[in-house]
This record gives sequence, structure tokens and C-alpha cells, in this order.
Amino acid sequence: MPKLMEEEVFKAFATYATIVILKMLLMAPMTAYFRFTRGAFANEEDVARKSAEVRKKQFRTHPDVERVRRCHLNDLENVVPFVLIGLLYALTGPELSTALLHFRLFAGSRVVHTVAYLGALPQPSRALSWMLGMLVTFSMAYRVLGQALVL
Amino acid sequence: MPKLMEEEVFKAFATYATIVILKMLLMAPMTAYFRFTRGAFANEEDVARKSAEVRKKQFRTHPDVERVRRCHLNDLENVVPFVLIGLLYALTGPELSTALLHFRLFAGSRVVHTVAYLGALPQPSRALSWMLGMLVTFSMAYRVLGQALVL
Amino acid sequence: MPKLMEEEVFKAFATYATIVILKMLLMAPMTAYFRFTRGAFANEEDVARKSAEVRKKQFRTHPDVERVRRCHLNDLENVVPFVLIGLLYALTGPELSTALLHFRLFAGSRVVHTVAYLGALPQPSRALSWMLGMLVTFSMAYRVLGQALVL
Repeated sequence: MPKLMEEEVFKAFATYATIVILKMLLMAPMTAYFRFTRGAFANEEDVARKSAEVRKKQFRTHPDVERVRRCHLNDLENVVPFVLIGLLYALTGPELSTALLHFRLFAGSRVVHTVAYLGALPQPSRALSWMLGMLVTFSMAYRVLGQALVL
Repeated sequence: MPKLMEEEVFKAFATYATIVILKMLLMAPMTAYFRFTRGAFANEEDVARKSAEVRKKQFRTHPDVERVRRCHLNDLENVVPFVLIGLLYALTGPELSTALLHFRLFAGSRVVHTVAYLGALPQPSRALSWMLGMLVTFSMAYRVLGQALVL
Repeated sequence: MPKLMEEEVFKAFATYATIVILKMLLMAPMTAYFRFTRGAFANEEDVARKSAEVRKKQFRTHPDVERVRRCHLNDLENVVPFVLIGLLYALTGPELSTALLHFRLFAGSRVVHTVAYLGALPQPSRALSWMLGMLVTFSMAYRVLGQALVL
């Protein structure tokens, strides 16, 4: 029955969509890692078992934690639109090679973006990787609108 | 025509996806509720009709409002990936009972997570419910990659 | 092969989903615009090439930047649920005219919301446009649950 999953383009979409979503999900454990190593928590119940002194000190924000959180939010802002528009794009029946080019470029751009963000690499590494991802999504949106325009 | 909606697994997916998205959407009125009861607004135009004194006092952040907002953001970070990967998972044609187990566990985990977050319940209640939801999404992603891998 | 894209309702969904996602994506360059014109950056590497004095001054938050960021987050919280539930809704085979009414109202409500937010228009313009969008999503969710309920 699941005919969609028998088509190469849709399988390629499913593969890359899953990869970039997993990458995004991994930002959460990474935030937790920085919260514990830097000792910076946002909720009282997270530090409830510590001594009063430590509790007061660790109930705060920390630049490294905020950096991971911004990176996570940027993923939400870019990865989710890619997956949603990519789904519609895959349904327009593009060439497999063209589709793969889009998906690979996007996945690569987000890996570079995360490394550039978390490593605080000199600009414009982060800006360019973010822009490349946007352009891929715009290119797919252009095809979707070209094939499906019903206003 | 909508063949997908005649399959039990897809209908089960549609049901649970809608439920967890509605749960996520309800965080917005809840934020509004806390903003009004705690008197804590983020925009000048939201307090424009109040007296100058109240206006100055209520143009601020409040811990209860920030807590709901973190809970809402956590929903975005976890519910959206569940729905996106769950859609692909439903298309791989899993057993209905297996699929239902995934969907029910996830929906349950997010209800517990919200209660634990808003009620500031002692840890690790919130951490465990969050992890359970992540594991369900990982399990579905594993099946999607196993069935659809085209790199 | 892509049968879905031959149906008018699904094409209408694809059109409006793409439009509201593009609108959401454009909030990112708008944030960048306000960061540059207001001189307010969140990362050290973003101001690394400026003089020490400017660097210290521009490593800060600015109300205009925070406003765009809240608007962007509100888009994420509302546009993504619309697209996800709208996809399921389109698969339930609604009347084209009913579906178009939903999609047009939502797209219109989000344009008004963005204008009201960025322009800091007097309330309740922003509140009402946000509520209208929510109601459209609720209405589609109601139909999905009515057609697909498998618990």
C-alpha cells in the first residue's frame, strides 16, 4: 500500500529529512550537556537537590548554553521549513539527481552551520552556510509554486 | 481519492498527530493567561491602555510566564519532529499495533512533560518524560531509515 | 506518479503552505536587517572585526530586534501547526471552496499579524489576527479528527 515509499525521490526525501531532523533533535542533549558542565539551569526544580549555595549560583544563564539554544532555534527556523517544503517538492516528481542535489546541499549546509555556530568560527562561515540552506528551500518552493499554483 | 485516509495506520497517525499539535497550540492561550494574571507583558502596545504607573510595572518578564514559554518551545522542539518523522513512519507500512504503541507512548509522554513542567514537579519527572518522547521518535526514525535509505 | 499533486485541493494546500512558510522564512533576513541597522548582535564572532569600542557597544540586545524575534517565534508556533494539520485536512478530501476559505483566511491572518507585530499597531489588532489563525487550524483539526479518529 505505501506507494510513496516505493519511489526513489520520495525515499531520498525521507532519508535526508530524517537525518536533518535527528541532527536538530540532538541539540537538546547538547543543551543538557552544557547546562550540567557549565552549571547553568533555568528551573528551580533542576537544582533542588543541591546545597543552598550551589543552588543560588547555578540558577542562571551561561553564554555557552545560550549559544546552543540559539543554534537549536535556528535549526527549528530552517530545518522544519526545509522538511515541509521538501515534502511538497518530492510530490511534484522532480528528477532524482536534481532532488538529491537539493537534499545533499541542505544537509551539508546545516552540518557546517552547527559546527560554525557551536565552534564560534569566524564569520561569514555561519552566515554563508545559513544562506545556502535558505536558497535550497527557496529553490524547492519555486518548483512547488510552479507546479501547484492554485490561489 | 484520498487513499491514505482509508488506511488504519495513517488514520491513527492523523489522530495522534492532531492531538499533540492541539496540545502544543494550547500553550499559547496558557501563556496569555499567565501574562494577564501575573501582569507581565513583552510589548508596549499590550499595556498601552493602562495607567502610566501600571504600564511601567507590567512591562516586564515574570518567572511563571517564562516557564510556560520554555514549555511551549520544548513542545516545538519535540512535537514537530515527532509529527514529521511519524508521517514518514506511517508511510513505511508498520503493523497497526506497533504504530499505535509508538503514538500512544509519545502522546502520553508529552502530557506528563507538560504537567511536570508547568507544575514544577520534582525531577527527574520532566527529564524522563522528555526522554521517552525522544526515544519514540528515534525508534520511528530508525524504521524510516531502514526502509527508505537513499543517500 | 505523484497523484496527490493532480488534485485541486492538494495543489491549493501546497500553494498556501508554501506561501506562509516563505513568509515565515523571511523573518530571518528581517532579523538580520534590524541587527545591522540597530547595531545589536548576539554572538562575539559577529562583531569580531569591529573596533574594541564598537564591539563592546554592539554586543547587546535591542527592543526592535527582540520584537522581530518574537514575531518569528510566533510564526513557528502557528504556521507549522497550520501546515501539518492542513496536510492531514487536505487528505480528508474537503470541498475545494471550503478548503480555499480556510487557507486564504489563515494566510491573510498571518500577514495582518506580522504587520501588526512589526508595526506595533494598537491592540487588539495583533491578538485578533492571531486568534483567527488559531481558529482556522482548530476548524481543520476538527474535520481531521472527525474523519480519521483511531485511538
